[in-house]
Parts: sequence; structure tokens; C-alpha cells
Amino acid sequence: MRAWRHAPRIGYKARSLAVGHRMSATQYCALPSPFRMKRGGMLHGARIAYETWGRLSAARDNTVLIVTGLSPGAHAASSALDPGLGWWEEMLGPGKAIDTDRWFVVCVNSLGSCKGSTGPASPHPDDGLPYRLRFPDLCIEDVAEAAWQVVASLGIERLAAVIGPSMGGMTAQALALLHPQACPNLVLVSSAPQAQPFALAVRSLQREAIRLDPDWKGGHYAADEHPVMGMRLARKLGVMTYRSPLEWKQRFGRARVEFRPCEPFEREFQVEAYLEAHAQRFVGSFDPNCYLYLSRAMDWFDLAEYGGTVEAAYQRMAVRRALVIGVETDILFPLEQQEQQAEGLRLAGASVDFQTPPSVQGHDAFLVDFRHFCPIMAKFLGAL
Amino acid sequence: MRAWRHAPRIGYKARSLAVGHRMSATQYCALPSPFRMKRGGMLHGARIAYETWGRLSAARDNTVLIVTGLSPGAHAASSALDPGLGWWEEMLGPGKAIDTDRWFVVCVNSLGSCKGSTGPASPHPDDGLPYRLRFPDLCIEDVAEAAWQVVASLGIERLAAVIGPSMGGMTAQALALLHPQACPNLVLVSSAPQAQPFALAVRSLQREAIRLDPDWKGGHYAADEHPVMGMRLARKLGVMTYRSPLEWKQRFGRARVEFRPCEPFEREFQVEAYLEAHAQRFVGSFDPNCYLYLSRAMDWFDLAEYGGTVEAAYQRMAVRRALVIGVETDILFPLEQQEQQAEGLRLAGASVDFQTPPSVQGHDAFLVDFRHFCPIMAKFLGAL
Repeated sequence: MRAWRHAPRIGYKARSLAVGHRMSATQYCALPSPFRMKRGGMLHGARIAYETWGRLSAARDNTVLIVTGLSPGAHAASSALDPGLGWWEEMLGPGKAIDTDRWFVVCVNSLGSCKGSTGPASPHPDDGLPYRLRFPDLCIEDVAEAAWQVVASLGIERLAAVIGPSMGGMTAQALALLHPQACPNLVLVSSAPQAQPFALAVRSLQREAIRLDPDWKGGHYAADEHPVMGMRLARKLGVMTYRSPLEWKQRFGRARVEFRPCEPFEREFQVEAYLEAHAQRFVGSFDPNCYLYLSRAMDWFDLAEYGGTVEAAYQRMAVRRALVIGVETDILFPLEQQEQQAEGLRLAGASVDFQTPPSVQGHDAFLVDFRHFCPIMAKFLGAL
Repeated sequence: MRAWRHAPRIGYKARSLAVGHRMSATQYCALPSPFRMKRGGMLHGARIAYETWGRLSAARDNTVLIVTGLSPGAHAASSALDPGLGWWEEMLGPGKAIDTDRWFVVCVNSLGSCKGSTGPASPHPDDGLPYRLRFPDLCIEDVAEAAWQVVASLGIERLAAVIGPSMGGMTAQALALLHPQACPNLVLVSSAPQAQPFALAVRSLQREAIRLDPDWKGGHYAADEHPVMGMRLARKLGVMTYRSPLEWKQRFGRARVEFRPCEPFEREFQVEAYLEAHAQRFVGSFDPNCYLYLSRAMDWFDLAEYGGTVEAAYQRMAVRRALVIGVETDILFPLEQQEQQAEGLRLAGASVDFQTPPSVQGHDAFLVDFRHFCPIMAKFLGAL
């Protein structure tokens, strides 16, 4: 099949093994069994993977919880146990913006993910085979409650702060609704109180690309035959909405790749090669069914379910101080939604620091524009 | 294959036959044979489909040429010969903005398309089988030159105006470069002098979705087995960039569809059903290989090839009056590119009317927001 020549079938397991020799700082928390989920399903014997940095104070009052975007795992930063660079390495560590000399930082891998926590790729306790689509409907609220179980298992009743970028911001808000007294301080980074239709459309198309891939097989793909085509397209579409047209204009313009295309309609522009590199890295490193579940959870999440409007939902939280960071070039979680969050929290009585750094990198700015993001984070946490 | 249940394999021919009983106003112009193309290929016995409205004046000085976006055919509006509604019905007709009582209007189907003009789906003269990927490399300049041959065949040496929306604006600008004296008046609607990387990325991903579809078969799909999956995804991605997040927010919000989804991860939100309806209409009505060729032609087009910069290219035209229309909510052909066109034409000595109607419909506004677009067009043409 000619069209597949550039789409090697790298399975999730193969890629995992290739990088699996690194040391691990991963810890696991067993969820209550059964763990009852928002839409009615339940899990037996489920667990959440997490990592920690810094030391819990004697008063147990210095915990900062990080809940993540769709794809990252719990390894937000390096540590003695795992010196590998984390996904928020520049943000988190001794003396950094999220200062592990002061804070006891916990980062959890989301329920439903494939990076250690129980999800659709995990073995079903009944037969040891992957859950696949037998995994119950997953909501952001379930992700939040599972994260809370990790915190509770550590004997922590109240968090110094909850930090949530992207989907993590939804999880943070869900947690602040489910356990208001435990969440007095909230950091929402490039997030939203609910998805608008453009974001719904993007994610729907990503899921459709995976579902239409014949190798998806209704979720029953083999470990070494992932729906690579669908995952490639989904990732490229993702990257297109994670960055910004302005950044790409400055970065790539109309520059060409150096090699001449040998396949018909092969990539010619540097922006195409950039997308290709992103897709290559992603395919095989994330389980397709997990992707589908988490993606849909983001679509379903809607703060307006709590009290009828987004604004009413903030009244049900007990947030005292909040940092809301949004970026003008974010097309997936547009700035107006950051404003809505800031205003809703303000109306609910919180002291809100609303920051809009001039990043050109769009939604992903929090992962790359540390020059702007780190000082904002450091200032907010420093004042707590 | 479960995932295909909602992707019926309607071939291009089947759909064409279903609507093929309407009367036709299509005329054909034989291109010079061979027709030499920009990147070195040539066509033998090629033709261009076109339609006309109104009457050519005795002085042959009242011709308005319309060159189209990627997918429309020559049937821009109804006529006595073909009462079916055209793709620009509201814009074009007796007493309308493009007033066929005054103008002799010619609309051509682009070279490389599948709506009557010669393209990759047309029979190769050597063997009567479709060209498919044997079709030579296609550039916007080839589309422009082929359109010019239609005009020349009608004995017209100079156009009263060339009107090009979207890709058609690129074609119009190419024509004004190739035949400057014939193009004193230009109307560029939601177009661009070259593609920026975001647009390159969108189209690259659309082409990849088609190419990765196993049914594409390197271009050798059967007439009744189109790469439906790829075309569906390509069209949905297209519609996402043709409209605007603002329009969708106003129009759909988070409203749900009425039926409950029966397939896993089936659509639930109205915006998903809207995309689905668009995809259903498109799949089977446009040839995938033609789509690939025209899409790439748009990527390749670059006014900066003519003199080193976009601005220099305008100096090589001989435009006296221009109307440039752009929309703030257009994410595919962003407003700054409309400004660049207006400014470039102005610097080259043209009198430029630059209009930015407050349309929320994004790139497609010219196809739907007639309340704003028609008066602007009428005023400009009326003053010629």
C-alpha cells in the first residue's frame, strides 16, 4: 500500500519499550474500588500514577497539585529518581517558578490516560485484556476525583494551589467544584470553562480520523497495528490548533524543505515537515482509545451544568485567589474564555490575577514561552 | 467495517447522474493543442467549460470574467438555458450586483477541475482512460491562461473586470500578470497573493487525508470506490477553516443533536452534524485527484515569484481600478493578506477600494453574506 509508506506502523508498546529503560519516579495510588464515575460506570482495582517533588510540610499545607493537558504523563520534571527531562521542566524545580524548595508538588497522570493510570488500554480485571471500549464513559469530573484520591491518600486535606493547563484547567475547575474547601487557590492556564463549537469541531474531526482508520477496528486494534493514519492526522490537526498562524508565519514563511519530493503530493514546505515531525513523535506514544476517551471528556465538560451558567458554577467554588493566564493567539481556548473564567471567579469573590502574555505560540505557549509564563507563575505562587 | 457505516461509498459518477437531468448552459472552449503548462507539462485536446450571461456589446468592451474558488463549476447563476440555482445566484443576474443587463459575464470552470473542464478525471487522449496522476503539474497560472483562452476565443481582447473569490483571486492576479493589458480592473474577494504557512498546513493535511485513505490507491481508485474517508475528513477540515469560530458560537453554541448516538464516539453536538452534512454533500461530487491538483496549485502560487516580492509583482500588472474585499474572521485568507493586496495595488498606481465588511462567516462570507457583499460589488462595478 503505497500511501502508507510514510506511515510506519509503530505500536504503542514498541515505542514504550524503546524509551522504557529510564529510571522511574512514578508512584501509584489505588483508587477506591469500586470507583464510581459521573455517567454511571464504575472501575474496580483502578490506580493513578503520580510523581512528587519537594517535601510535604509538617502542617501538610504546602501541596501544589498539577493536573495535566490531554497527553502528558505525571513526569512534569526531572528528579533524583528520574533524571529524564519532564514536560514542564523549565517551570518546576528547586528555585523555579513552581519552587520545589517551598512546595510539595504532586503531578498526576489523568484517569483514562495511558501513562501509568488506569485507562482504556489497561487490563480489565475480569479477563486481563485491555478495557478498550469497555472502559466506562469518562468525564473531566472523574479525572478530577481520581486526582483528589491521590491527594487524600497522602493525608492532605487542603491544597495550597491547583494548577491546570489546557484540559488540566478543566480538571482543576472540576476539582474546585467537587471539593471546594480543598481548593482555595487556582491557577488556570490556557483553559476554558466549557468547549466552544470550534474546539468541539476540531476534536470531533480528530476522533473521526481515528475512528475511520480501518486499523482502529472499533477499538480492537492490535498492539503493533495502531490506527497510525488516524493518529497522524489527529496529531497534525492538533498541532495546527495548538500553535498560531502568526508563529508559523514568522518561523516558516514559505520556506521549502531541502529534499525534492519523491512521492506524489509529498510535503514540500517546512511547515509540512514540522507537522510530520510532530506526528512521528506522537504516533505510537499515545494509545488511540485513551485519546478518544479524554478528547470526548473535554467536549462534555461544561461548567454551566453547575447552577445553569458558567458564572453560577464559580459561586459554588470557594476560590480565594486565582491566576488566570490566557494568550491572544490561542485559537483552541480563545482569550475570551480566559476572560470569562477570570470574570466569573472575580464575581464569586476571588482575588483574580488575569495575565495575557504576548506569546505568539498560541495554545501551546505554556509549554514553550517560559520567558513570559515563568515570571507570572512565580509571582502568583510567591505571594501565596 | 463498522467505522464506515456513516461513510457511504457514493462515487462521483453516481452523484452526477442523480442530478444530471438538469438542462445545461455549459459551453466548451478547446484549448490550443498542445497547451503548454508552467511547470513543463502539456495537454493535448484539452477543453474548458464555461457559461455566459448577458450580451457582448458591439464594442466587445463589457465582459466581466469570473474565475472561481477551488470547487465551484461554471454555473455561477441560473439562466434560461439552465434554471438551476448557481453558486453565486444572489450576486449575479439581471439588476443584481454583477448586473447581466449591462455586463457580458463569463464564468469558467478551472483547468484541472472535474466540472466540465479537462482535469485529472478526464480521459487521456492516448488511451481514453482518466489522466489520474498522469495529469501534468498544475499551477494557478495554467488555470489563468486556460481561462484567458476562453475569453480570447470569444474575440474579446480586453476585460471590463476580472472577479476572483478565494482561489479565483489568485487566478485573477495570475491573469493580470500574464495579460496585463487585458486586465485593467480587478476584484479580489477573500483571496491572497501567496499562501501563508497556516493555509499551507490546512491544505497539506487535507491532501494527506486523501492520500492516506487506502481507497485512494495512488490515484487509481475506481469510479464507485472513491477515497470517501479521506474526502470526508478533507471537506470537514475545509469547512472548519471556511467559516469562523465566532459564527459557530453564535449559531450552534453547545447545542446537541436530537438523536442519541448509537455508535461509539458518534456525533452529539450540532456543530458536528453541520460538518457531517457538508461532508455528505461534497463526497461524491468532486473528484479526489482533481482536488489534490487544485489544492497544491494554491500552495505553489506565489506572486513574489514575479520580481522578488509581492509588491514588485503588482508593478508588473496594469491595474487601474481594484476592489479588494476581506473579512476579519477569515482564518484561511487572513485580513492582513487582503491589506497586502490592496496596498500592493495602490503602490503600483491603481485606485483601490478596500472593503472589510463585518461578516462573521469567515472565508466563506462571499458565498453567504450577500447583505454586505452585494452592495460593495454593485458600487464598484457600477462606477466602472
